[in-house]
Amino acid sequence: MISVEEAQRRVLSAFKPIDAELEDLVHLAGRIAAEDIRARGDNPPMSIATVDGYAVRQSDSDAPRKIVGKATPGHPYFDTVGVNEAVRIAIGGVMPNGTDALVTVDNAEAAGEVVHFRTTAVQPDFVRHAGHDFKSGSVLVQAGKRITARDMALLAAGGIAQAKVRRRPRVAIASVGDELSAPGEDRRDGDIYACTGYGLSAMIQTWGGAPCDFGILEDNAEEIATIADADAELVVTLGGNSVGNTELVARALGTTDFAMETWKVAYRPGRPLLFGQLGGTPMLGLPGNPASALVCALLFIRPSLDVMLGTQQRSCSLPQRIKCGCQSMTARLSSGLPATDERRTYVRASLVTEGGEVWAEPYPVLDYPMLSVLAKADALIVLPPGAPEAKAGDRVEVIPLDGY
Amino acid sequence: MISVEEAQRRVLSAFKPIDAELEDLVHLAGRIAAEDIRARGDNPPMSIATVDGYAVRQSDSDAPRKIVGKATPGHPYFDTVGVNEAVRIAIGGVMPNGTDALVTVDNAEAAGEVVHFRTTAVQPDFVRHAGHDFKSGSVLVQAGKRITARDMALLAAGGIAQAKVRRRPRVAIASVGDELSAPGEDRRDGDIYACTGYGLSAMIQTWGGAPCDFGILEDNAEEIATIADADAELVVTLGGNSVGNTELVARALGTTDFAMETWKVAYRPGRPLLFGQLGGTPMLGLPGNPASALVCALLFIRPSLDVMLGTQQRSCSLPQRIKCGCQSMTARLSSGLPATDERRTYVRASLVTEGGEVWAEPYPVLDYPMLSVLAKADALIVLPPGAPEAKAGDRVEVIPLDGY
Repeated sequence: MISVEEAQRRVLSAFKPIDAELEDLVHLAGRIAAEDIRARGDNPPMSIATVDGYAVRQSDSDAPRKIVGKATPGHPYFDTVGVNEAVRIAIGGVMPNGTDALVTVDNAEAAGEVVHFRTTAVQPDFVRHAGHDFKSGSVLVQAGKRITARDMALLAAGGIAQAKVRRRPRVAIASVGDELSAPGEDRRDGDIYACTGYGLSAMIQTWGGAPCDFGILEDNAEEIATIADADAELVVTLGGNSVGNTELVARALGTTDFAMETWKVAYRPGRPLLFGQLGGTPMLGLPGNPASALVCALLFIRPSLDVMLGTQQRSCSLPQRIKCGCQSMTARLSSGLPATDERRTYVRASLVTEGGEVWAEPYPVLDYPMLSVLAKADALIVLPPGAPEAKAGDRVEVIPLDGY
Repeated sequence: MISVEEAQRRVLSAFKPIDAELEDLVHLAGRIAAEDIRARGDNPPMSIATVDGYAVRQSDSDAPRKIVGKATPGHPYFDTVGVNEAVRIAIGGVMPNGTDALVTVDNAEAAGEVVHFRTTAVQPDFVRHAGHDFKSGSVLVQAGKRITARDMALLAAGGIAQAKVRRRPRVAIASVGDELSAPGEDRRDGDIYACTGYGLSAMIQTWGGAPCDFGILEDNAEEIATIADADAELVVTLGGNSVGNTELVARALGTTDFAMETWKVAYRPGRPLLFGQLGGTPMLGLPGNPASALVCALLFIRPSLDVMLGTQQRSCSLPQRIKCGCQSMTARLSSGLPATDERRTYVRASLVTEGGEVWAEPYPVLDYPMLSVLAKADALIVLPPGAPEAKAGDRVEVIPLDGY
């Protein structure tokens, strides 16, 4: 038996960051920046009035000013403002050359072409200075960051029309088993519905990959061999005894370029995990039990995608962890859990907050294979190998299942 | 001035649940169930062996059994098993008619067509009984739930090939202002880049809507009037002084079917909010400042989409709140904040966890208009109107900005 960490280490070592592609601004949300994205100009590009008023020169005397023009958004005053001159400016208007202060309309009295001010006070927050938000060349989105909706607005403000993002890693998924029917089909006697692939595809999309569903394959070497056509960065098989029969599948492929290892990984719920290469493409064989397979996906496919996408893997605290995919947070147990053996144990749980703290209520261990329990769980409680009996109130590590 | 709650109440009263549409299973992830989705069969549909062994009758004597056949996944034994008979069964195989117990291979010794057992103990977890996960007709996904990846697997296991989900509400977005250029265009002197629309479109997609970007409109009645062509459930304008000039726009439209109200809402950062009707379609005018507009989107557009989508609005605790869109959780302040006036105040903050608790560190209040600060914030701290000075360590309400 190997530990979960060792299995993860072996799987992840088969992946490297994927190539980048140039993508239009409107398609950047949710993508991973392949390089630091830098502003192509200051924001705001010029100093801007934040209220209606008069743009003036701070060094002028208190004498009445001559109104020489006006500035509104999109319609700047292009001349330079001279001594004892003022420009009527609207909120959002560009501060004209020569001006460095703004007097609000409330403090001004205009008569024809002349304006008097009731105050000499100049409050700096009436002008938003050029580059106040960010300067040209400053990093708006760091390499490895998943671009959010807010980042989209920031990038647009920085004049970014296109940016380099990681290509979505393609993941080919094949459901293997003579007992499988597709939902909506008439189910043959003794068949069950193929289901894991639908959940896995949706997870892979959420995690930034591009799933490609090969559908249902019969459990024999010839059918498994058809996956060799997959143009993908990762091939995943769900169930199927033939996948691990390297010799038979390689013969069906007419090649020796197929090698799989069967690992007994020290975790529950778990089954033997298959990992190998299909013509240079990493290939992962997950258990046939849907609930187990989807937990394996979280442990092995999600970090594989993170490696390919170059996602930041900071060691960080709760909300950041959730956000950056560091995958875990802590919670307190609502009820006790038995000691674990040599296997890392993932217990489905619901989460509630009381007194500002997060509590995890474990579901019964016997319910592991139930999809209905996995679907309603908020998190997986992670118990390390050899953990003593856990009591109610103990703090435990949990992997939130939010968003998938 | 009206309160945020009153403004929300008025806006939300203009929306009702949108119509449903039938969607294929592969497209259900992220959609909102329009009705309870019920299983079309038991899961598992038959009792299934969870280990390799022999399917037998519990009532039989301890005598050796005659091996009458075998059952593997997809290849059931179709006859009925009689007295003192056994069927060799593989993991995942269907338990044959007449059998109700399983003896593992480890406890069996086969010789030709006969098998002896070293035990009479029958452990129930060697058989996963029909309907153990869920029964035909049971609710797999409740109406109003956002369908997750795990739900997808659950629905497939229940034989669901299509389901009724809420149509994505269409939101037309128009950026109004003579000073706006699109990113990537040569920026005219005095222009700024239109940016809010890109962020808002991405948010609306995340929240389950279908954005439709009308691009940049000049700030005059004729241009505003072109939005009348929008085939949408909600029209949003960003910036623009003309939008509120009901008489002028209605004249440009050649109709009186345009009415907008300007509200001073008691919140900061905030500007007057416009709300009205354009030929029976609700229309919302957000401030031109991008950071303010995106906060307004969170307060007014997100709940509007929730109403149209019929999303559950349970009053619930932290992780559920995040998940079900109840929009808030609590955190402790890392540093103090001044007392608020009559306005509800939204303060951008970063979140960190220490000692299992979430702490919110506010950004300086003067940085409100900065998109760069909004983009790096993890949450908005919500301070109610008339709140006293808040001290470090105080517990405050926060709206997490995860996922957008």
